[in-house]
Amino acid sequence: MGFVQRTKTCGELRAAHAGEQVSLNGWAHRVRDLGGVLFVDLRDRTGLVQLTLDPNLFPNRNEIRSESCLSVTGEVRERAEGTKNPRMSTGDIEVIVTSYSILGPAKPLPFPVSDEDQMQSVNEELRVKHRYLDLRRPSMYRRLALRAAAMRMSRAYLDKEGFLEIETPIITKSTPEGARDYLVPFRNEPGKWYALPQSPQQYKQLLMVSGVERYYQMARCFRDESSRADRQPEFTQIDLEMSFIRQEDVLQVAEGMTRSVINGLIEEFELDKEPVGAFDRITYDEAMHLYGCDKPDMRFGLQLFDATELFRDTEFAVFKNVIESGGFIRGVRYPAGAKLSRKEVGALEEFAKEFGAKGLGTVMVEETLRGSLAKFVTPEMAVELRKLTRAEDGDLLLFVADEYAATNNVLYRLRLEIGDRLGLRDPRILKYIWVLDFPLVEWDADGNRWSSMHHPFTMPREEDLVHLETDPARIRAEAYDMVCNGTEAAGGSIRIHRSDIQARIFSMLGIDERTQQDRFGHILEAFSFGAPPHGGIAWGFDRFAMLLTDTENIREVMAFPKVANGYDPLMDAPSTVDAQQWAELGLRLS
Amino acid sequence: MGFVQRTKTCGELRAAHAGEQVSLNGWAHRVRDLGGVLFVDLRDRTGLVQLTLDPNLFPNRNEIRSESCLSVTGEVRERAEGTKNPRMSTGDIEVIVTSYSILGPAKPLPFPVSDEDQMQSVNEELRVKHRYLDLRRPSMYRRLALRAAAMRMSRAYLDKEGFLEIETPIITKSTPEGARDYLVPFRNEPGKWYALPQSPQQYKQLLMVSGVERYYQMARCFRDESSRADRQPEFTQIDLEMSFIRQEDVLQVAEGMTRSVINGLIEEFELDKEPVGAFDRITYDEAMHLYGCDKPDMRFGLQLFDATELFRDTEFAVFKNVIESGGFIRGVRYPAGAKLSRKEVGALEEFAKEFGAKGLGTVMVEETLRGSLAKFVTPEMAVELRKLTRAEDGDLLLFVADEYAATNNVLYRLRLEIGDRLGLRDPRILKYIWVLDFPLVEWDADGNRWSSMHHPFTMPREEDLVHLETDPARIRAEAYDMVCNGTEAAGGSIRIHRSDIQARIFSMLGIDERTQQDRFGHILEAFSFGAPPHGGIAWGFDRFAMLLTDTENIREVMAFPKVANGYDPLMDAPSTVDAQQWAELGLRLS
Repeated sequence: MGFVQRTKTCGELRAAHAGEQVSLNGWAHRVRDLGGVLFVDLRDRTGLVQLTLDPNLFPNRNEIRSESCLSVTGEVRERAEGTKNPRMSTGDIEVIVTSYSILGPAKPLPFPVSDEDQMQSVNEELRVKHRYLDLRRPSMYRRLALRAAAMRMSRAYLDKEGFLEIETPIITKSTPEGARDYLVPFRNEPGKWYALPQSPQQYKQLLMVSGVERYYQMARCFRDESSRADRQPEFTQIDLEMSFIRQEDVLQVAEGMTRSVINGLIEEFELDKEPVGAFDRITYDEAMHLYGCDKPDMRFGLQLFDATELFRDTEFAVFKNVIESGGFIRGVRYPAGAKLSRKEVGALEEFAKEFGAKGLGTVMVEETLRGSLAKFVTPEMAVELRKLTRAEDGDLLLFVADEYAATNNVLYRLRLEIGDRLGLRDPRILKYIWVLDFPLVEWDADGNRWSSMHHPFTMPREEDLVHLETDPARIRAEAYDMVCNGTEAAGGSIRIHRSDIQARIFSMLGIDERTQQDRFGHILEAFSFGAPPHGGIAWGFDRFAMLLTDTENIREVMAFPKVANGYDPLMDAPSTVDAQQWAELGLRLS
Repeated sequence: MGFVQRTKTCGELRAAHAGEQVSLNGWAHRVRDLGGVLFVDLRDRTGLVQLTLDPNLFPNRNEIRSESCLSVTGEVRERAEGTKNPRMSTGDIEVIVTSYSILGPAKPLPFPVSDEDQMQSVNEELRVKHRYLDLRRPSMYRRLALRAAAMRMSRAYLDKEGFLEIETPIITKSTPEGARDYLVPFRNEPGKWYALPQSPQQYKQLLMVSGVERYYQMARCFRDESSRADRQPEFTQIDLEMSFIRQEDVLQVAEGMTRSVINGLIEEFELDKEPVGAFDRITYDEAMHLYGCDKPDMRFGLQLFDATELFRDTEFAVFKNVIESGGFIRGVRYPAGAKLSRKEVGALEEFAKEFGAKGLGTVMVEETLRGSLAKFVTPEMAVELRKLTRAEDGDLLLFVADEYAATNNVLYRLRLEIGDRLGLRDPRILKYIWVLDFPLVEWDADGNRWSSMHHPFTMPREEDLVHLETDPARIRAEAYDMVCNGTEAAGGSIRIHRSDIQARIFSMLGIDERTQQDRFGHILEAFSFGAPPHGGIAWGFDRFAMLLTDTENIREVMAFPKVANGYDPLMDAPSTVDAQQWAELGLRLS
C-alpha cells in the first residue's frame, strides 16, 4: 500500500467520529507492544491519537519504530470505559488500523522525542545536530507557531497604522561602532569588505529622508560576539521609524502594538497570562533611585530607600566615612526577613558582595532592633527608619554604603533576589513600563571619552543643547526604553535630523571631522537635503517570544540556532572552503 | 515658529475643506516665484497640494528651496475658476500660508526630483548615491507600497492556509552547487567560513522532517554573480514547503496565492491589468515543441510548426542534409509579414543568426509563393504548408533547419520578436501557465556529466525510476514552473524524502560517496529518521514586483539596490577595514 493522503488530522478526532473510516498521516510518537497488540500514538502538528494494530492482520507491525513517518487508514472506535484517557484530547477514541504504509522509516533515535523531560537532560550539541528531531517536540511546534503568530499580529497592527514594510540590505557597510561586525570579502576587489548589519538604523533613517514617513521591518541583525546563553550570531528585531512625530507618537504606536499583539496571543494560544494594561511611565532618574536600575521589574514594590540623612551624624565609622566622602547609605526591605538565620543572612551578604558590595548592614525590625547596625540606631532614629522604609515588625532591612552607582548595582540585584524568594515575580503577569528621559551620554572611563547611552543618532532635548560643549552629562536625550518584568523589551529615540547638530554630537563623542566623513558622511550629506523630524523604536523579537513562552533559552524560540561560539553542528558550519574559493577572494591565512 | 504637526495630509484636501485652517508637513516639490508670490507644491506620501505665500507676509520666502522639508499652517481656499488644475487631485484648492518653518533645509540638488522623465536620464550611480532623493519620486513610493502590499497579501493567503512563517539562518554553510556563495570568515577558527544562503532549500526540507508540515518565508537569498541589469547580490523569494502532499496540492496553493495577490493588488492599486484567471497547463515537451522554450509567452498564439516531413524528399541540399543527419525543419509564421522589404527580411535573418541560426528560409504566402524557399515548394506542398502553418495570404513563413535544440533557440526568439512587432504582448494581460513534467537531468557537455534541471533534491517520477542507472535522460521529474508572459515566476518540485533514492541521485550526478557525506551528510541522515513526502515552490519576489509595476529594472523595486558589480555608492560599500579587524580574522591578502 502506498501513500494515502489524510482525510483527518490526528488532533481533531473525537467520540463523534466513531464508526468513521479515516486516513491519517504522521509520526509514531510512542510505540507499545502489549501482548502482541501494537499501540501507536500517531502525532501530527495538531496532536496525538492512539492507533491499534491487530497482530493477526499485521505480522510485520514491529517494523513501525519510534518516529517512523506513517500513512494509515482505519476506523475510529470509541474506547471502552476505563480505557479512556482524559489527559489526551483524543483520549475517548482509538483508530483500529486496517492498512498502513511506512512513508519514511526511522533508524534508532539518538535521543527520545516523546519525553520532553528526558529531552532536557540531553546534550545541547547533540540536540542541535539532530535539530529536525528536537523540533518534533510538540512544545517546539507550539513555540514556532506562537512566534509566527506574533509576527503576523505585529504586522497586522503596523499595516493598519499605515506603515510600509521595507527590506533593507543584509550586504552592507562595516561601521565599527558598538559590537563587532561580521564581514564578507568582496571578490571583485580583494581587500574590500561588506559587513552584515547590526541593525538597519542608518537605512531606516535614510528612508525617513526619502519621504517614506512610516517604515517597519522584521529585521535580521548580526553581531559577532562571544556566545552567551541568550545570544546568537543572528537575531530578529521588529524595527520601526516614523517622520513628523514627537516622542509621544512613538510611545503610543509602540505601546498599542505591544498590547494588541500580546493580548491577541494570550487569547489565541490560551496563555496563562493576564492581559497587559496601560504602561506606567517612570523617568531614568526615578528608576535608578527607586529600583537601582534602568529596567526595573515593577511587578512588585520594595522600592529602595535612602538613609543617608538618617545616618548623617552616625558614629559608625564605615557609614561616616562614606557619607563624608559624598557617598550614600541606601537599602532595601526584606519583608518578614527578620526570621532569617545568621547563616542565611551571611549568604545574602555573600550575594551582595558578588555585585560589588563591600559589606551588608542589617537591621531586624522587632520591638528591640537586632542586626549589625542595631547599636547605631537610636530610638528616635528607629521611628524615622520605620517611616522611611515602611518596615513592620518582622522585616529585615539591608543597607549598602557606597557611591551612588555602586549602591544601585547591589541593591538592584538584592531587590530582585528578595522578589524571587517571596514569589513576587509572578510569571502570569507581564508588567510593561516606559523608562523616559535617559541621559544622552555617559563617561567611558576606559576610553577616556563620552559615549552614547543609546546611539550617536539620538536627539538631545532641545532645552539641554546649551550644555553640549560644556557639560554633556547634563543633557537628557529624547530616548525611551520599553521594559517588561525587569528586561528591556524595546528601545528607541527621536533622532537628530539636522547635519549641524549631528556633527556637534559626533565631535562631542570624540569622532574627529575626517572620521565623521569616512564613516557617516552619507548621513550628514542626507541630512542636508531636507530631512524631516523622525524617530523610532526596535523590539528584540527573540526575547519577546521567550517571554511569552516562558523560556530563558533563546534556542527554544529559533528554528535553527547555533550552539556555543557560533558553531552549527547540524550543517557542520562554519567549514573549510576549497582552494579555488580562496583564490577568487584573493585571501590567505596570515 | 517651530514644528507644527500636521492636521491633514496634502493629498486629502478638496474643495470641501475650503475655509479650514490646516497644518501640513512635507517637502517643497516644486517652487515657483510668480511676480513675488511664491507657489510651492507641497508633497507628502499621500500627494501634492499647492501652497501660496504672500510676499508681504514672508520677505524671506526664497529660503524655501526645492526639497526643503516644511511645516506649514494656512487656510484652504478654493481656487478661482480658470486656475483650477484638473490633473491634480487637490487641484481645486490651494493653501494660503499664514506661517511656516523649515524643518530641514535643502542644499542645491544633484538632480531634479520633481521631474520623473528628466530623472531617467540621470546617471544611475549618482541616483543610487543619493538614493534618499531618488526614492522621493512619487512613483518609487508607489512601487515600495505595492511591494509591501504584495508581501502582506501573500502572507495573508498563506496564513489562512495554515502555513507557519519561520525564519531560517542567514549565516550558514557553503554548498558550492549552482552559483557562487558569499562567504563570511569565522573569527574563532581562522580558515573556516560561513556562507550566506542561495536559498533556504535545505532548511525548509529539514523543517518538513521536523514535522512542521506547512512552512513559508519571505527569504533573503544571496548569489555572488556578475551583475546584470536584473541581478542583485541579494534578492527576495517567497518560499514555501508542504508535507504529505502530491504535486497537485502545491499547484493549487501556489496558483491560489498568485491569483489572490495579483487580483488584490489590481484592485487596491487600481492597476491597468486584467484579473488573472485559472492557469493553463502545458508539459515541458509541448512547450519546447510549440514555443521553442520552457517559459512560453502564451498571451499570443503563433505556435511553431514542424515541416520536416514536408521537406523529407526535398532537393534543397541544405534541408536535405539536415534531415538526413537527424535534424529538423521548423518554423514560425509572421502574420502579414509578406509585405516586408528585402532589407527587413535580411534584418530578421541577422536577428536569427544572433541566436545561432545558420540561415533563415522564407516563404511569402501569396497566390504565387515568393521567398528563398519558394522554388522548392511544389503546388502540392504549398497546400500542405498552408494547412500545417495555418498561413493565409500575406503571411511570411520563416524556416530554420538544424538540430532540435538549435531550432528552438532561434524560433523561440523569433516568435517573441514577431509578437513584439505585432503588439501581441499586451502589458495589461498577465498570462500565467504551469509548465509540467520537466526532465530530471540534462547532459552537461562541458562537465561531461548529468546535471539537475531543477536541483538534486527533486523527486523523479516513480515509474521512471527504473531508468536511473541506465538512461537518466528518460526520467521525468516531479518538477513544475509557474510562467508568466514568457518569464519564470516560480519554480518548485516534489522532493526526495528517502535517503536511498537521494544517494542514488547524487551518484548518478557524479557526486561520489565521500563528497555526498561531506556536503549533504546531514540531509541523508535526516531522511533516515522518518521523513515525510514533501514538496514546495519559490517565487522570485523582486521579479513579481517588477511585473506588476511594469519595469525591467530591478533597482526600481528595491529600496537600496547595489549598482553594477555590487558597489553601493550610497554607503560606500564595500570598504576597507582596519588592521585590527584583519588580525582578528587571521587573514591577509594573498
